[in-house]
Amino acid sequence: MSTQQFKLDAARAALDYLPEAGVVGLGSGSTAKLFIDELGKLVAAGRQLVGVPTSEDSRAQAIALGIPLLDDAGPWQIDVCVDGADEVNDQLDVIKGGGGCHTREKIINYASAMNIIIVDESKLSQRLGEKWAVPVETLQFAHLTTKAALEALGPAALRLKNGAPWVTDSGNLIYDVSVGPIDDCPGLDAQLKRLPGVVETGLFCARADVVLVAGSAGLKRISKARG
Amino acid sequence: MSTQQFKLDAARAALDYLPEAGVVGLGSGSTAKLFIDELGKLVAAGRQLVGVPTSEDSRAQAIALGIPLLDDAGPWQIDVCVDGADEVNDQLDVIKGGGGCHTREKIINYASAMNIIIVDESKLSQRLGEKWAVPVETLQFAHLTTKAALEALGPAALRLKNGAPWVTDSGNLIYDVSVGPIDDCPGLDAQLKRLPGVVETGLFCARADVVLVAGSAGLKRISKARG
Repeated sequence: MSTQQFKLDAARAALDYLPEAGVVGLGSGSTAKLFIDELGKLVAAGRQLVGVPTSEDSRAQAIALGIPLLDDAGPWQIDVCVDGADEVNDQLDVIKGGGGCHTREKIINYASAMNIIIVDESKLSQRLGEKWAVPVETLQFAHLTTKAALEALGPAALRLKNGAPWVTDSGNLIYDVSVGPIDDCPGLDAQLKRLPGVVETGLFCARADVVLVAGSAGLKRISKARG
Repeated sequence: MSTQQFKLDAARAALDYLPEAGVVGLGSGSTAKLFIDELGKLVAAGRQLVGVPTSEDSRAQAIALGIPLLDDAGPWQIDVCVDGADEVNDQLDVIKGGGGCHTREKIINYASAMNIIIVDESKLSQRLGEKWAVPVETLQFAHLTTKAALEALGPAALRLKNGAPWVTDSGNLIYDVSVGPIDDCPGLDAQLKRLPGVVETGLFCARADVVLVAGSAGLKRISKARG
């Protein structure tokens, strides 16, 4: 069994959470891409589902599959959002942004009644931050000043693409901040976001309702305890 | 005595806080403009001061006056920033952003060793938020979703210019959120900034070291108590 098969298993398991008819947030990245393919099959078969894409790649894929989309400006009432992750712990904390789409992903996550995260087992960590740096979207203006402030928390590397700064869908930059293992996800998120010049972080702290982890031992469902 | 004279009195009083040589943050708005004029006279007379402008208007004014400027990317070591305000209380909390420049102003405020706010007496409030809504810079993407989230705190009005949405120097929008009198400035600031889609707020909570208020009774200096 391959990682690719695990990703597909997780993507297919997410279909159980879709409403009969409604609005679906469309994640970004390789696992979300497999989910959008599956969603396209449902829509082609007549299921009344419309999407809200979290990236230009997901938008193009959805359009090619004939999935109707809502307007970017919003407002939306999203029933469920299905998205991948770069790293996830069993407390349902997530790091996203390896693909540079975490700001739109976070807006859509917060606008969704339910959030499903789909991953293969390689993404699961005992402690968040063991594997990934935290991606932080920053304004271009004063970005070296913002970098200096970020470095109070760990080394901050400007993300590049073909040697030039990576520019997000909103025209901003990304710094990957190596904070190490994270003890207090919401505290770190607030500390980062408080800095002027920071647009959004890739920390999604307890923002998943269900994490579907596919691996060699089958499918594991991690859910939020309902108080 | 006119409001214009009070603004000039406050602007001139700020000159006492400038270093003999160093870096000065240049605010935006009508009162900061008077300060930049005074600064230009010092530079013309040989004083070794360089500026970091908080807006394109301030940049153009500084260039016209021959004030040397540092690069927008930073990082900077700013000795003192002199800026105006829309509303200020005697706890040194400030609302800015009437001119739409509060994000750059806040970045430069946080990068400055000392912050001086210069106002005429009409800007002073017993309780912050009595007179002004809080300007909030938001991404264009999903702005109606962000608006809906902001309206949990008060009516949010998209700022317009000649009938079209006002677009900031960073390509974003501004919502003016009428929150009413503010009891907890840092709490409200954090609550607003936590929302995905929010780039920056116009709340500067205890971010002034000195507020210079010029009015019919002369000049009043409000300073931070040093612990």
